[in-house]
Amino acid sequence: MLNGGSSSGKSGIARCLQAILPDPWLVIGVDTLIRAMPVSSRRSVVGIEFASDGAVIVGAQFRALEAAWIEGVAAMAHAGARVIVDEVFLGGAASQQRWQQALGPLPVLWVGVRCESAVAAGREIARGDRVIGQAASQADMVHQGVVYDLQVDTTRTEALACARAVAARAQAAVV
Amino acid sequence: MLNGGSSSGKSGIARCLQAILPDPWLVIGVDTLIRAMPVSSRRSVVGIEFASDGAVIVGAQFRALEAAWIEGVAAMAHAGARVIVDEVFLGGAASQQRWQQALGPLPVLWVGVRCESAVAAGREIARGDRVIGQAASQADMVHQGVVYDLQVDTTRTEALACARAVAARAQAAVV
Amino acid sequence: MLNGGSSSGKSGIARCLQAILPDPWLVIGVDTLIRAMPVSSRRSVVGIEFASDGAVIVGAQFRALEAAWIEGVAAMAHAGARVIVDEVFLGGAASQQRWQQALGPLPVLWVGVRCESAVAAGREIARGDRVIGQAASQADMVHQGVVYDLQVDTTRTEALACARAVAARAQAAVV
Amino acid sequence: MLNGGSSSGKSGIARCLQAILPDPWLVIGVDTLIRAMPVSSRRSVVGIEFASDGAVIVGAQFRALEAAWIEGVAAMAHAGARVIVDEVFLGGAASQQRWQQALGPLPVLWVGVRCESAVAAGREIARGDRVIGQAASQADMVHQGVVYDLQVDTTRTEALACARAVAARAQAAVV
Repeated sequence: MLNGGSSSGKSGIARCLQAILPDPWLVIGVDTLIRAMPVSSRRSVVGIEFASDGAVIVGAQFRALEAAWIEGVAAMAHAGARVIVDEVFLGGAASQQRWQQALGPLPVLWVGVRCESAVAAGREIARGDRVIGQAASQADMVHQGVVYDLQVDTTRTEALACARAVAARAQAAVV
Repeated sequence: MLNGGSSSGKSGIARCLQAILPDPWLVIGVDTLIRAMPVSSRRSVVGIEFASDGAVIVGAQFRALEAAWIEGVAAMAHAGARVIVDEVFLGGAASQQRWQQALGPLPVLWVGVRCESAVAAGREIARGDRVIGQAASQADMVHQGVVYDLQVDTTRTEALACARAVAARAQAAVV
Repeated sequence: MLNGGSSSGKSGIARCLQAILPDPWLVIGVDTLIRAMPVSSRRSVVGIEFASDGAVIVGAQFRALEAAWIEGVAAMAHAGARVIVDEVFLGGAASQQRWQQALGPLPVLWVGVRCESAVAAGREIARGDRVIGQAASQADMVHQGVVYDLQVDTTRTEALACARAVAARAQAAVV
Repeated sequence: MLNGGSSSGKSGIARCLQAILPDPWLVIGVDTLIRAMPVSSRRSVVGIEFASDGAVIVGAQFRALEAAWIEGVAAMAHAGARVIVDEVFLGGAASQQRWQQALGPLPVLWVGVRCESAVAAGREIARGDRVIGQAASQADMVHQGVVYDLQVDTTRTEALACARAVAARAQAAVV
């Protein structure tokens, strides 16, 4: 479970994990969910709103679909799939609890993906396809009250090196 | 459940359904799964191979991940999400049975999306991002032995009109 | 030169032309220009605005860059490249004149790509990534006062068949 | 003119330049050209071949279209557009000469975008959509014999900081 703010580098770490781990792993994340939802315009999906300052306002409809989605991702893991979840815990500790409840006794490595707010904001500009402001507004918020097995920081460490740290820890946990 | 060959028009119908149905529906399909899988090169994903004539060769690793994936999508529906599945039953009747087993007693509308092979092959060229040959090779194969509640044909009917027929049937089924 | 409203099917015809013409042709269009421009947010590019009803408001900055862009595309053709331009003449006849001036004595086949407004609007919904309303608002507007060598209509004719008509006419013109 | 190997960070710098420069600048690059070319399959474009080790083999057809393309981009600049070219000089000094000839007396800031080969190779894995091996094979090759006004190195410097250095130098050059 990779949790971090927008433009913190989670997806890059996830793809590196897919490349270096010996078994095939699925990468599923909040972006997968958003792509699956109805689009009422180029910018807004049902029950979620991207304010112009980068804040994300989540409504009841999104929460309901997200809850079913979490159940589904947990069921994939229960059914034997190896899953890397690429997530943004907008609710901090409350988000973690939602996942813990769904995942139950499954072995999970909780990984915090950190990136200094100013650096993440710069990378958001460099990506060119993001609402400016999300990186800064989420950088700390998504980690509040969350308990991790491991934290990595992409500010000065490459995604591949972060992925190697996560893989080493995951394999140690299995043994 | 929308089943049809590549370039038969399933995804267009799915997006129209999202636009016209009163509640929010998720669209999840085999493309979502393929995007979640490790990419060993720009062209191949783990356990699946796209032959140059458009044939798709599915290996054991893909089958195993797909089985867990189907469990997960079924679990989303069990947890209350309304889901439009955008699928390609490469195994025909056997694929349908895999889904039936996972979905259990959930209400499902089985929809066959047909398109004349030559027309689908032309649309494949017009899309410009597909392996040429898939549309023709899948046009009939994916429907072999599959039992439907409704079939639509995009050869001469627009996606929106097909979606209206599906929505009407779905709402009749609920009542 | 393919001119037509949003969701009229120009890009599909352009890709089919690339597939069936014996020589390699470049496809360049207004989408290429928009992708090259600075993005001030996920939705707006410099000097162009997409109103919520699908209208496109073009400002002076966009016009200036577009003028230089047209010169550049014309220069590619002058330098020997075969170019399919995939365009939306928001200014109708005035847009055509801008291109005529830049292209000078170069041989051009002017092709109008028509699609009934209601059908284009339905395809816009099926695409799922367009601002709803553009197809309807542009369907007739972009053809006002424009003079064509050939017109095709995608309402009931597939992109590949339209492309074949265009290719036949282009080759007849060369001979 | 930004020249660097695949995954060296050129595109990120280009988008940051668009964000920080006071006037609107177009970003045009080899990716724009490749997207404009006919696709014979999902992987190969006319006259260019991506070997499985990341080498890029460029044929005569690609060279001819590229020459016309360079003329066109130069014409855009001559016509007044501010253009950031995001390029990969596969031919090193010979590529630079092709551009110099087309650009003539126009003011150009030649910028080399460097990235240590191993770091670029890691970022290539993290991107997930590139042919593995290009980053390493191009890291040094594209700079051979090329003369720069400025070089930046993304190995340990963020794209935004590199863009600021380029912008400062560009504005100094204007004065």
